[in-house]
Amino acid sequence: MGVDEIDVVVEHADVLQIGARNTQNYNLLRAVGQQKTKPVLLKRGMMSTMEELLMSAEYILAQGCSKVMLCERGIRTFERYTRNTFDINAIPVLKSRTHLPIIADPSHATGHWNFVESASMAAIAAGADGLMIEVHPQPEKAVSDGAQSLKPKRFSDLVSRARRVAEAVGRRV
Amino acid sequence: MGVDEIDVVVEHADVLQIGARNTQNYNLLRAVGQQKTKPVLLKRGMMSTMEELLMSAEYILAQGCSKVMLCERGIRTFERYTRNTFDINAIPVLKSRTHLPIIADPSHATGHWNFVESASMAAIAAGADGLMIEVHPQPEKAVSDGAQSLKPKRFSDLVSRARRVAEAVGRRV
Amino acid sequence: MGVDEIDVVVEHADVLQIGARNTQNYNLLRAVGQQKTKPVLLKRGMMSTMEELLMSAEYILAQGCSKVMLCERGIRTFERYTRNTFDINAIPVLKSRTHLPIIADPSHATGHWNFVESASMAAIAAGADGLMIEVHPQPEKAVSDGAQSLKPKRFSDLVSRARRVAEAVGRRV
Amino acid sequence: MGVDEIDVVVEHADVLQIGARNTQNYNLLRAVGQQKTKPVLLKRGMMSTMEELLMSAEYILAQGCSKVMLCERGIRTFERYTRNTFDINAIPVLKSRTHLPIIADPSHATGHWNFVESASMAAIAAGADGLMIEVHPQPEKAVSDGAQSLKPKRFSDLVSRARRVAEAVGRRV
Repeated sequence: MGVDEIDVVVEHADVLQIGARNTQNYNLLRAVGQQKTKPVLLKRGMMSTMEELLMSAEYILAQGCSKVMLCERGIRTFERYTRNTFDINAIPVLKSRTHLPIIADPSHATGHWNFVESASMAAIAAGADGLMIEVHPQPEKAVSDGAQSLKPKRFSDLVSRARRVAEAVGRRV
Repeated sequence: MGVDEIDVVVEHADVLQIGARNTQNYNLLRAVGQQKTKPVLLKRGMMSTMEELLMSAEYILAQGCSKVMLCERGIRTFERYTRNTFDINAIPVLKSRTHLPIIADPSHATGHWNFVESASMAAIAAGADGLMIEVHPQPEKAVSDGAQSLKPKRFSDLVSRARRVAEAVGRRV
Repeated sequence: MGVDEIDVVVEHADVLQIGARNTQNYNLLRAVGQQKTKPVLLKRGMMSTMEELLMSAEYILAQGCSKVMLCERGIRTFERYTRNTFDINAIPVLKSRTHLPIIADPSHATGHWNFVESASMAAIAAGADGLMIEVHPQPEKAVSDGAQSLKPKRFSDLVSRARRVAEAVGRRV
Repeated sequence: MGVDEIDVVVEHADVLQIGARNTQNYNLLRAVGQQKTKPVLLKRGMMSTMEELLMSAEYILAQGCSKVMLCERGIRTFERYTRNTFDINAIPVLKSRTHLPIIADPSHATGHWNFVESASMAAIAAGADGLMIEVHPQPEKAVSDGAQSLKPKRFSDLVSRARRVAEAVGRRV
């Protein structure tokens, strides 16, 4: 999404997402902050510290848009069995430093559908305020990210299980 | 623990621990594998891949010692708000590749007592077979790792909560 | 620099620079590639692989702009004595994979003026086609990056020394 | 090399090398420091900060062995075109903090023979006090590290070139 595309996205989408590669695209952050119609989901860059993520959020908030959600989607490390390393610590650490909701993206944070459920349960147990999960009826035909997409049935099971974990830590889904 | 100290440690300890800095000390791994009296807890190096951790375990197993537990204790990344980055993905990924029990060490993996509980719940929810948590009656007087140590009361609350999360994912503590 | 600012930058600048935080800002890369008046200096992201840097360059080249220079400016690692880790390997590796000129930025790659000269000599010796160095008459008053800026006299000495190293490896400054 | 093998290595070798995987094996460091016959080459761990390398050197020096050389052999990062990332900054930074000689190991730091020469020139230009390079008459038959080994002829050319670069920065090989 470029600065000149914000209007059309605002018109059609429920949430404006700033992707991991644009986390420090300050022109875009400021422009998104100038609209107050739709909430903004700001993804942590794969190369960003938590401090930088919080500073990127400030660019949006400072323009007057107060509905900002932060999204942990995994960071880049030397580990090679997974696409990214899900920084689960980010959930309690960010919650201790900001009142903004923290969303987890276990699909990107693992990169493989068969680890998405475990990572989702971990996120909820650690205190995440929401999950963002890729679902596709035929993952093997997905245009992108098929390897990390769940089929609908598996997704629905995941939601039931997430509900139980949320209750166990005193929350509700 | 050096190779020449194994006998005395076996005599007095319940478990032999190979620390993160010795994860690729092959002499020590082999020597520890030659005793079959006590189980071995092998910690992942702060910069070991999961593949390397599994290969280190092989050094012990190949000597005939079959009671080996793997421990995820956080890896080194660029993030600076935490001491290490807890690689929560390691729990389901390792479980998909080995039958060995996977233990999580949220104390080292976060480095701060106030994040230990959230990280512990995440570990259990992700499928960890056990937790290893630093507890100290007076953390501020601890010889080492005080910042990441829990007081006994807080630890006891954590165990109750862990029990509820374990049940939510169909396990028992 | 945003997409809508390209025209004015083209008018006044000698080179268009894509900064490290915009290395994967594909809208900007494409827009910059559509002008053919000025050469483009594309900086490697602080957490981009070399492969990703080459792919970002393709976004520019594919639009018809052929004057693209790649710039190694250091990557993010766990090391804390320096601002970034200068990936000197990137110079010969990139030269083996592309015909584009490779520029080194020892100011960002070290973060401290007193290491800039050594890093510059290393870059030239490794085969870099150019250096990009921050210079300031009064670094302590610089608006940004003062800690890594050289005073003019020291810069001039650096150039003389770079000339000698270049000759030693069969090149000319 | 284990603690119990030091005597036999001292008898036959010119230098005692502590490998990257043993950089924080404190028993071994202390034991090596207790002999004063042979110099010690201490390799930086692939996961060690420069500060940790200096602290590991202290373990040896504190035992009375004063002939210690530090070796930069590349650190682990997310980059995948090379085996390790050669931290060229480590050369001037370590020289600013210690009087110990700094040796570079471009073979491990790149992992590919065709980048060893450029990395070697960079190391000398940055101020390294020595190079450690793997050479094999038939690299394709090497028991280990063949991919990063030079044939003798190429090694001899490298030495000539290193001599010229050393002179260019006011030193002598």
